[in-house]
Amino acid sequence: MTAPLRLGIAGLGTVGTGVVQILRRHAALLEARTGRAITLSAVSARSRDKDRGVPLKDYGWEDDPVALARRDDIDVFVELIGGDEGPALDAVKAALATGKDVVTANKAMLAHHGRELAEMAEAAGRVIRYEAAVAGGIPVIKALTEGLAANEITRVMGVMNGTCNYILTRMQATGQGYNALFEECAKLGYLEADPNLDVGGIDAGHKLAILAAIAFGTAPDFDGIEIEGIQHIQLEDIHQAADMGYRIKLLGVAQRTGRGLEQRMQPCLVPADSPLGQLEGGTNMVVIEGDAVQQLVLRGPGAGQGPTASAVMGDVCDIARGLRLATFGQPATTLETLPAARSALPAPYYLRMKLVDKPGALAKVAAILGQAGVSIDRMRQYGHSDATAPVLFVTHKTSRAALDEALAAMRQTDVIAGEPVALRIEEV
Amino acid sequence: MTAPLRLGIAGLGTVGTGVVQILRRHAALLEARTGRAITLSAVSARSRDKDRGVPLKDYGWEDDPVALARRDDIDVFVELIGGDEGPALDAVKAALATGKDVVTANKAMLAHHGRELAEMAEAAGRVIRYEAAVAGGIPVIKALTEGLAANEITRVMGVMNGTCNYILTRMQATGQGYNALFEECAKLGYLEADPNLDVGGIDAGHKLAILAAIAFGTAPDFDGIEIEGIQHIQLEDIHQAADMGYRIKLLGVAQRTGRGLEQRMQPCLVPADSPLGQLEGGTNMVVIEGDAVQQLVLRGPGAGQGPTASAVMGDVCDIARGLRLATFGQPATTLETLPAARSALPAPYYLRMKLVDKPGALAKVAAILGQAGVSIDRMRQYGHSDATAPVLFVTHKTSRAALDEALAAMRQTDVIAGEPVALRIEEV
Repeated sequence: MTAPLRLGIAGLGTVGTGVVQILRRHAALLEARTGRAITLSAVSARSRDKDRGVPLKDYGWEDDPVALARRDDIDVFVELIGGDEGPALDAVKAALATGKDVVTANKAMLAHHGRELAEMAEAAGRVIRYEAAVAGGIPVIKALTEGLAANEITRVMGVMNGTCNYILTRMQATGQGYNALFEECAKLGYLEADPNLDVGGIDAGHKLAILAAIAFGTAPDFDGIEIEGIQHIQLEDIHQAADMGYRIKLLGVAQRTGRGLEQRMQPCLVPADSPLGQLEGGTNMVVIEGDAVQQLVLRGPGAGQGPTASAVMGDVCDIARGLRLATFGQPATTLETLPAARSALPAPYYLRMKLVDKPGALAKVAAILGQAGVSIDRMRQYGHSDATAPVLFVTHKTSRAALDEALAAMRQTDVIAGEPVALRIEEV
Repeated sequence: MTAPLRLGIAGLGTVGTGVVQILRRHAALLEARTGRAITLSAVSARSRDKDRGVPLKDYGWEDDPVALARRDDIDVFVELIGGDEGPALDAVKAALATGKDVVTANKAMLAHHGRELAEMAEAAGRVIRYEAAVAGGIPVIKALTEGLAANEITRVMGVMNGTCNYILTRMQATGQGYNALFEECAKLGYLEADPNLDVGGIDAGHKLAILAAIAFGTAPDFDGIEIEGIQHIQLEDIHQAADMGYRIKLLGVAQRTGRGLEQRMQPCLVPADSPLGQLEGGTNMVVIEGDAVQQLVLRGPGAGQGPTASAVMGDVCDIARGLRLATFGQPATTLETLPAARSALPAPYYLRMKLVDKPGALAKVAAILGQAGVSIDRMRQYGHSDATAPVLFVTHKTSRAALDEALAAMRQTDVIAGEPVALRIEEV
């Protein structure tokens, strides 16, 4: 029997506590499956006295996560502190420097410092595993890095922020507006301390940067993502998209193009009857397309104690079994740095605007679209009680540049009221 | 740089040819990701002269797969011959006996001889990998064995035969009957040489036996599966299930119960708006439920050249990277043998019968159900033009034994015509 694998866990919030629970509940199962005992040597968190519902007195305690990372009675440092810099980053570096493997759920840290950390780990012969950082309980890092290793990945997409998907699907189901549902999420504890991480698309963007790195062999490039949050989505858009057979999702899309790496995280329309369109509530979904596998869809809980702890412990089991590979699936020194490509591939768009109710208004808008080379697939004008008429277009495939040109021209006219809404329609 | 990993491929049908294509197309990608070249030393197939669309002259040739397995210029024997015994089994044993790792897509062989082969492999320090054996391109073996290793798995379910799902969804979409669609599948080449492997549920049963072994730490027990095919599903059932909000799927379900291992592969009703209910055509879906992860849904192509070759090559990449683990996720000698438990957990059922059109017929049937303790959730009687009236019941949860008692009693009466149809409704 191999020696036990000894863990140190930094951060005892929901996920950390969940990991301790699994270690206690499934000690025998884990040993049967990995061939060695998995033990917990010591933990670190802010408050030693807080009751976390699991007994901690059997384990060593460190106030400082860096001190935990340096202990010589741990083999794996489990980082569940969070934050892209500060104690999390310091402790992970200390762990690597003192010969520990690292398991982390920290998407922000990897999106911003992934390449540097991967190089450190590989130089030291250590591994960094981070299944829990992307899409909670879904083993998508493993699927992409290992299961699909023989594929040239052509596109990765995902709905990876449960809070945003909860808000968008509840807007549809209840007819409540964005603000009311934002407040509901705040009450339910669904929001990060800085809610912009959720509703601004930042958190989901971190996840996309990590997936894109693995998929395309590039260094994680969070700054290269076009990010747009869901704060401006109105109930009208939800309903009118539905009326046209679509759902609005905060969708991440990454693909490698001839002009660089395209990464977008933005509200998009997807067909209501597609797997992404059918995804409701806080569930996450990742779609991976490869030249051999065609399309793989993974769906599961994107957050929560059990699912996230499941992912953390899956990584721990891999290390216990001796399954070791480069952080992003190939040596960090070989990761490319590609220019960020603004979405160049043409797509259909959803366009909503309020037309001033006077003769020739629609003709003028249609003419502008035509002059910009944007052709119209479907158009609907809705009944109205005020002086403006809600009008909806679904365009044929067009470039974003042509669309922006048309939008700029429309703003110069006196026939539209307020700002037009343009949302990309993603073919999935 | 590590030495190249040298393959020998036995079986050059669609999948084998697809594997050769990936090796040729992605040599550089595979080397970048695994850190070593992956080369093909030799192949074996029935006909040396057949044009398979890929050049084979660069590789050695063996008429006999056993001779290929024994060659000393291969590290990994890739078995794509198929069949639970005969040349496939002989060659795999020869490969293990001569120190080769094995990658196979052979579900029948593993369902029937999995434990024996796993013991051989583990005694020899070799691995057997078989991602392609279950659900084609979906990396479900990896998800279950590795990603969810820290979970007690509570249930595994899946739609894992694309041909059956194609037939069932086309019956719904086109209104054609089973026989017409069976003929269509035969023409399209969707059927195994022995079509009963597909439509009889055998092929899907092999896959379920493998998943259950990993999930529950038991030796694969194909003979313990209750198997029922789709041959008896009538168009009426498809339509009437839809009318009640359900779809009919050939669904595999495995769960560990207090009385043993329950494994069923049978046509079931699932809610039309569930992920399983929405699965159309030849796509496969596997649902895994674990105590920590809750529910994971994996969806992708269940067959075809690219997807299956992707899975085979994912296994090869794991071996190239040195990722090695026990065949069923824990040592074969520790796999339990559990009694086969006939589905004991109560479930709602769909019951369809033709009532003889005379006074008191419905009352009699209802009384029989009541006497057996089967209570009715919903009932519909449909219009009819002959002397029998189609009647449909959805029961509340009941045991199969109680239902069988009621069915037996009904058969003794003179109020039903023909054989009643009873299909389980699976909560998913």
